[in-house]
Amino acid sequence: MRTFRTKKETQTEIGLQKLKGKTIGYVATMGFLHEGHLNLVAKAKEQCDVVVMSIFVNPLQFGPNEDFERYPRDEKRDSELAEKAGVDYLFYPTVEEMYPEEPMMEIRVTKGTDVLCGASRPGHFDGVAVVVMKLFQIIQPNKAFFGLKDAQQVAVIENMVRTFDIPVEVIRCETVREEDGLAKSSRNVYLSDEERKLAPQLYQTLLKGRELIQAGTTDRDKIISFLTSELNKFSLGKLDYTDVLSFPTLNVEKQLTGEVIIALAYQFKQARLIDNVIVRVGEEL
Amino acid sequence: MRTFRTKKETQTEIGLQKLKGKTIGYVATMGFLHEGHLNLVAKAKEQCDVVVMSIFVNPLQFGPNEDFERYPRDEKRDSELAEKAGVDYLFYPTVEEMYPEEPMMEIRVTKGTDVLCGASRPGHFDGVAVVVMKLFQIIQPNKAFFGLKDAQQVAVIENMVRTFDIPVEVIRCETVREEDGLAKSSRNVYLSDEERKLAPQLYQTLLKGRELIQAGTTDRDKIISFLTSELNKFSLGKLDYTDVLSFPTLNVEKQLTGEVIIALAYQFKQARLIDNVIVRVGEEL
Repeated sequence: MRTFRTKKETQTEIGLQKLKGKTIGYVATMGFLHEGHLNLVAKAKEQCDVVVMSIFVNPLQFGPNEDFERYPRDEKRDSELAEKAGVDYLFYPTVEEMYPEEPMMEIRVTKGTDVLCGASRPGHFDGVAVVVMKLFQIIQPNKAFFGLKDAQQVAVIENMVRTFDIPVEVIRCETVREEDGLAKSSRNVYLSDEERKLAPQLYQTLLKGRELIQAGTTDRDKIISFLTSELNKFSLGKLDYTDVLSFPTLNVEKQLTGEVIIALAYQFKQARLIDNVIVRVGEEL
Repeated sequence: MRTFRTKKETQTEIGLQKLKGKTIGYVATMGFLHEGHLNLVAKAKEQCDVVVMSIFVNPLQFGPNEDFERYPRDEKRDSELAEKAGVDYLFYPTVEEMYPEEPMMEIRVTKGTDVLCGASRPGHFDGVAVVVMKLFQIIQPNKAFFGLKDAQQVAVIENMVRTFDIPVEVIRCETVREEDGLAKSSRNVYLSDEERKLAPQLYQTLLKGRELIQAGTTDRDKIISFLTSELNKFSLGKLDYTDVLSFPTLNVEKQLTGEVIIALAYQFKQARLIDNVIVRVGEEL
C-alpha cells in the first residue's frame, strides 16, 4: 500500500493506472476504521482492479458545536487496517492540502436535507457535498462505495452525481449487522446491557414497516403511525424520529411509489442510534 | 466531425479516446459562432489531439428579464463552421438532456460576483458554474479554452477548478481584436459610424491604464480615477463601469500586487461593449 499526502501525487498515480485500463474503486472515510469501512473495501476489491481509500476528517461538515477537534484520529492503526484489507493507495491529506485557501464558491444542497438527521444539522450535507466533490475530482474513481447505514449521505451523493453528471458509479453497500440484527456502530459500546438487549428491536421494527409496504400498504402516514406506536412501546430510551421517504430524492410522498427508505433515530442514555431499510414499493414479499 | 445529442454517447466516445492516450481540448460555447470561438478551436487544435466543442444555451445563466428565448440559434451554420474549424466532436444537447430533473443542489459563487458585470446580473455566474461543472464532468477535457473577452467568466471558472480540484487546465486565450484594437463582438454591428470610430479608444484607454501600472503606479484608486476621467471625456455613449481588481480572485486591493485586471463596460446607443486587459504588477514596460 502506498500513502499519498498530496492531491498531485494521488492524481498522477491514479491517472497512470487509468491509462493502463485499470478500474478504480474508492472508499471515502474519516478514519478510525471499523468493520463497516473494511466491508466497503472488500466490495471494492471484488469489483475493481485498484482500491483507493481516503482518510480525511472534513471540518466543513462539522457544525460549530460539533466534535471536529475531538474526532478520533489514529493514523498508525488505520494504515495497518487499510493495508491488511487490501487498499492499494491511501490518500491521507491535511486540512491545508484540501483547503489551501478560502473557497470562492460553495455547494448548497437544496433538497433532502431538512429531513432525517439533516433537520438537526444545518449545513452538514453542504460540507459533505463539497468534500466528496473534491475527492471525486482528485481520485476520479469508476466506482465509489458507500455504506447504507448513512443513507442520507448516500442519497446526497447520488443526487450530486446526477445533478452534476459526475462520471462515478455510486455503489450502495448493505449495512453490516450483528447476528441479532443490530446495525454495527462504534456507538454501540455506549449501550447499557439492558439497552443492548432492546436495541435489535429497532431493526425488527423497520422490518415490520417493510413488511407492511410489501403487503401492499402505500399510505405514508399509516406506516409512520405504525412505526411510531411500535417504537414508543419500548421501555428504554426515546424515539428521536422515524420517517418514510422516497429514495434517494428524500421527498415526502403521501402515496409511496418506487424506492423508499424507512428510517429512524433512537436516543438511548449515552448513544443515539440510527438505522434504516430501503424497499421498492411493489416488490414481492 | 461527429455530433452527439446525449451525455452518454459523448462520455463513452471521449472515454475511448482518453484510453487511447489522446489529450482532449474543449471549447464551451452557446453557439452562433464567431471568430472568437473559432480562435479558441485553433488554439485547442495546437495543444490537443482531439477537439470537442459544446453548443448549449444554458437557461440557468439568464436572468428572468434576459433574452434566453430570443438568444440566436442556428445549428446548420454552427455545425458547418465548427467542422471547417476542425472540431472532432460537437456536443449539442437539449435543455431536457442537460437538466432532466429539478436540480437537488446548486453552486453558489460567493466571491468575485458583486463586481464588474456580475454586479448587475445576480445569479448569472452561479448558472455558469453549474453548467461548466456539468460539461467538464461529461467531457472530461485535459484543457479547456476560454476567451479573455469574458474575463469574469474565466475568473469564475478558474476559481471553480481550484475550489473543487477539477483536473482540467483552463487556457486563457487573448481577445481577438479588429486592426484598430476594438475587441471583436457580435454587438459591434449595432454601433453607428460615429460610435464605431470612437470605440477603439476604449481599448486605448485600457492600455494607458496598463502603462501606468507598468510605470510603477500600484494605487488602485489613482488608476481608476485616471481611467474614469479619460472615459468621461468621450463625446458619445456613457461609461457603465471601470475597475481594477486582482485576477482571477477579483478582490479589491488598494495596493495592487500580482496579476490584475483593468476592465470596463461602456454603453453606446444600441450596444453595451465590454473590454479588459490583464497585467502583472512589476512586469516590465
